This record gives sequence, C-alpha cells and structure tokens, in this order.
Amino acid sequence: MLVPALTPFQADLAVDGERFAAHCRWLLAEGADGLAVFGTTSEANSLDSGERRQLLERLIDGGISPGVLMPGTGCCALPDTVALTRHAVEQGCFGVLMLPPFYYKGVGDDGVYASIAEVIERVGDRRLRVYLYHIPPMASVGFSFEVIGRLLKAYPGIVVGLKDSSGDWNNTRGLLEMFPGFEVFPGSETYLLDALRLGGAGCISATANVNVAAMHRLMQAWRTPAADRLQQEVAAVRAAIQKFPMVPANKAILAELRQSPGWNVVRPPLRPLADEARNALLASLASLGFALDRPAAAA
Amino acid sequence: MLVPALTPFQADLAVDGERFAAHCRWLLAEGADGLAVFGTTSEANSLDSGERRQLLERLIDGGISPGVLMPGTGCCALPDTVALTRHAVEQGCFGVLMLPPFYYKGVGDDGVYASIAEVIERVGDRRLRVYLYHIPPMASVGFSFEVIGRLLKAYPGIVVGLKDSSGDWNNTRGLLEMFPGFEVFPGSETYLLDALRLGGAGCISATANVNVAAMHRLMQAWRTPAADRLQQEVAAVRAAIQKFPMVPANKAILAELRQSPGWNVVRPPLRPLADEARNALLASLASLGFALDRPAAAA
Repeated sequence: MLVPALTPFQADLAVDGERFAAHCRWLLAEGADGLAVFGTTSEANSLDSGERRQLLERLIDGGISPGVLMPGTGCCALPDTVALTRHAVEQGCFGVLMLPPFYYKGVGDDGVYASIAEVIERVGDRRLRVYLYHIPPMASVGFSFEVIGRLLKAYPGIVVGLKDSSGDWNNTRGLLEMFPGFEVFPGSETYLLDALRLGGAGCISATANVNVAAMHRLMQAWRTPAADRLQQEVAAVRAAIQKFPMVPANKAILAELRQSPGWNVVRPPLRPLADEARNALLASLASLGFALDRPAAAA
Repeated sequence: MLVPALTPFQADLAVDGERFAAHCRWLLAEGADGLAVFGTTSEANSLDSGERRQLLERLIDGGISPGVLMPGTGCCALPDTVALTRHAVEQGCFGVLMLPPFYYKGVGDDGVYASIAEVIERVGDRRLRVYLYHIPPMASVGFSFEVIGRLLKAYPGIVVGLKDSSGDWNNTRGLLEMFPGFEVFPGSETYLLDALRLGGAGCISATANVNVAAMHRLMQAWRTPAADRLQQEVAAVRAAIQKFPMVPANKAILAELRQSPGWNVVRPPLRPLADEARNALLASLASLGFALDRPAAAA
C-alpha cells in the first residue's frame, strides 16, 4: 500500500520541504510500503517542475530510500514529463506514476499511446518502471484497455502497473482479469480487499495520509478471518472523509492530529475547508472511533 | 481580430523558432490586429515554460512589437502562471490570455477566483492586462458570470477581457450584455459579425491561421452591406475545417499552402491528420473556392 503524500505549504504558499520529509517518514514508520509522492492528493499539479525535483531530492537527502518512491511525473507538456521522469530514474526511484497529457481532450487511443511511448523512448533507460495513472474524474483523458494492451506489448518490463482512480470497481476488476501480473492499485481502500483477492497490488489512497496504520493492518491480515472487519473499518473512515473535498479534508485532519493549523494551507485552485465543514468532518470521524488525539509523531 | 498562432515543430518535435516568427510576421502582414500566441491552437499546453519564454523573446527580437502580443500564460501550477505572466509584462506585451488552473475539477467559483486573484497580486504590476480564457471543452474549469463580476470589481483596469471558446453563442451574448466595456472575443469567427454588432472586440480563432485575410476584410467592412456575405464566407470555411481536429487540420492546410510538409508535425497527445482526412479537408476547401495555391509568403 502506497501513500500519495500530502504536500505541506507555508502561509505564503511556498512548499515546506522539512514538514514534507517529516510527514513522509511518519507514513513509512506507520506501515506504508511506499510513497506515491506528487499525485493528485499531493497537489502536484499545483507545483512547478523545479519544486517537484527539489522536494524529491529533499526526501532522499533526508534518508528516505528512493526504492520506496514512486513520484508522479506526468504533465501536459512532453518536455516536462520527460525531464521529471528522467530525474526520478536518475534518483533511483523504483517507479513513476504517469498521468497522460490532460489538457487536450478527445485525443483518442492513438494520442494517449503516442504520448506515453514518446516519453519512454526519450527517457531511454532500462531502469524505468512506469505505472499509468488513470484518473478520469480529474484528467478526463484516461487509459483504455486497448492502450494498456498496446503499451504492455511494446514495453514489457517497463510499463508494469496502473493506479485506477476511476472509482469504478468494474474497471479495476476488468484490469485485474485482463492483465494478470500487471500491478493494479485501486485509488481507494474501499476496494482494497476485493482487489487483493483478485491479485491486486494494494491500493494508493488519499486517505492513507491520515489512516495509514489501519490500512497497513488490513494489508497484513487480508488472508485471515479478521480481513472483512478491517476492510469495513477503513471503508467507513474513507466514506466519512470523501463526503468532503479530498485534499483539504485530509489536510484538516492532519492539522487536527498534529495540532498544527499550518497543515490546512492549500494552493489555489483548492480552498481550505470552511470551519463548519471541518467540524462536521471531525465529528463524523470521532463517531466512528477514529482517534483524533493521537500523539503527533511528526511535524 | 487576433490569431492564436500555430507553433511549428521540427521533425524531432523541437520548436522551430524561425518558422514561428515567419508565420507570425505573415499573419500580421495579412491583417491580424494581434497575436494570441500560446493558446490551445498553439499547442501551448504541450510546451514547457522555458520554450514559451524563448519563443516570445524570439518574436520580439525578430521585430514583432510586444504591443500586438497577448501570450497565453495560464498553467495548472500557480508558480508557472505567475512566472510566465510576469515575463510577458516585462516584455511589454499588451495583455495575457489566462486559463484557470485546469487539472483539479469541481473547485467552484471561489477556487477559480482565488487562482486568478493570487496571480494578479503576485505579479503586482500596474501594466498587467488580463484576458480570461474560457474554454470549457478543453479546460473543463471555466469562468462563470459570478467570477467575472467579482474579478472586474476587484481588479478594474487589470481584468479587461475574455476569450469565449465555449462554442455557446448564448454565453457570448450574455457576457456582452452583462459587462459593457469588457472586451469579449468569441473563439470562433462563426459568431464574429454577431459579436461585433453587440459590441464585441473581434474574435480569436484557430482558423485565422489559414484564413486571416478574409477575416480582416470582414473586420474592415462589418458596418457595410457586404458584411453578411463576408460573414457567410468565413463561416463556411470554418465549418469545413472544424469537421476535423482543429490543430492538425490547420497545420495540414498551412503545409499545403506553403508546400512545406514539416508544418504537419504536432506534439503528442495530438496526432497529424491521416492522408484520407487531409485529402477530404483540402477537397472540401477547394469546393468552397478557398485558394490553396496562394504564393507562400512565409516559411
């Protein structure tokens, strides 16, 4: 189970590299198998390329092994995606999570295929491992089964997995059935146990930022009789959080857990939760027995 | 009438600054009032920030007055938008065309307002003139009348206009009626005469790349009895072209006009027109009397 780590900002919206590294270390200590930094939840699309590179190097300099890092590198512009992907490979990251170019719509399978193929060819490094990032609710442009099949045929051992944030279990199940050995991560723990039982690789979920230990317990126990109960517990927390905008909601919870209001800062176009929404969210979590008074182990 | 100038690429997908400058000079010589470089038609979202800056400086060094340039500067990430906007102001451009951040969906009016306001505050330059870029078919995120009204109130003389690429004449008409003095450019010449008659500022249209002289004649004659006929002529050419994907179709026409196949190159995720589509497009234009054998005045 990988965590799409939240990116903390200072009050002036500058990235806070120190708090970011501390948060990432805490996630790993709590049981995350890896970190899908610079995903949607990380507000990566609100970071420029230089910020992404600096933050990645900050993590590695701070003692986090690149072997647990899967940075997001897919941008709208081919040169940005190539540069970030090459940088991640050079830093030793075990893989990259690649959005398709998402500005131009209606580009068809050929356009999506050509985009990913061009990046792989230009990076030209056998160490590269690409996880496709399928998130139609945000990107609109996504990966069809046809494109995935073509990429797997053209780049075996390079294109190795996919994060499915479609929110559509039928799509996730279809991928698991159609492409055995392909590492499929649902984008939500709602489908974690179902995915594991069909050969899924785990999940990459926004709410792991605040509930990573519970998901780790499920990952450890999924073949035991406790699995269904653990699944219900993480799903209930997820359901409570996803009634609110995902990024500000997770940041509000972290701000509460850490007693650190600075965690509420988001970059536009996102906005922090209003007080009323935050109170409703925290009350809803408390009613589920979600501990909001845990000792803060990180910044 | 402004032209969202196409960006030429070399065979290896590098930008071709020389051909770009030559194309821009030709558009101005044919009657364009200005150039909205780095829009959707320019494949600007497939260029990185450095390429955009270099191409802009290339135009100005090549003798094009920044007083006719309205570069697109809106990116997903706040720091990119601020840097490009500041650069455009420092270069003396008369305005910038600003997309809202377009990755995160469902951000609401507050998110869109905060995004534009934050850029304006950070650029902090009285010379800045912002034209909002409303193109829901690509960006999904757009500018509601509510957001436009708030921006006009907060930044009078800074937020001065909008390109309406909604393709919805009712939206364009509503803007013209609701915000007198606000410079509204429909994103298609289909609505050019209608917009001019309601106080519109002209249009900014992809197909001006290949039909700028005819649009210029309409702009010159729109108060004369010839106006309706000229409008019908440009609309017929537009209708023929927009049956095909806009960017590759315009590039294919330029390639034919210039007898320069290199103009067909697009960056992924876009793809060049297939031969059959290109032949159908050119035949359709020929049947309208559109001259495809004009002497090539530019590269």
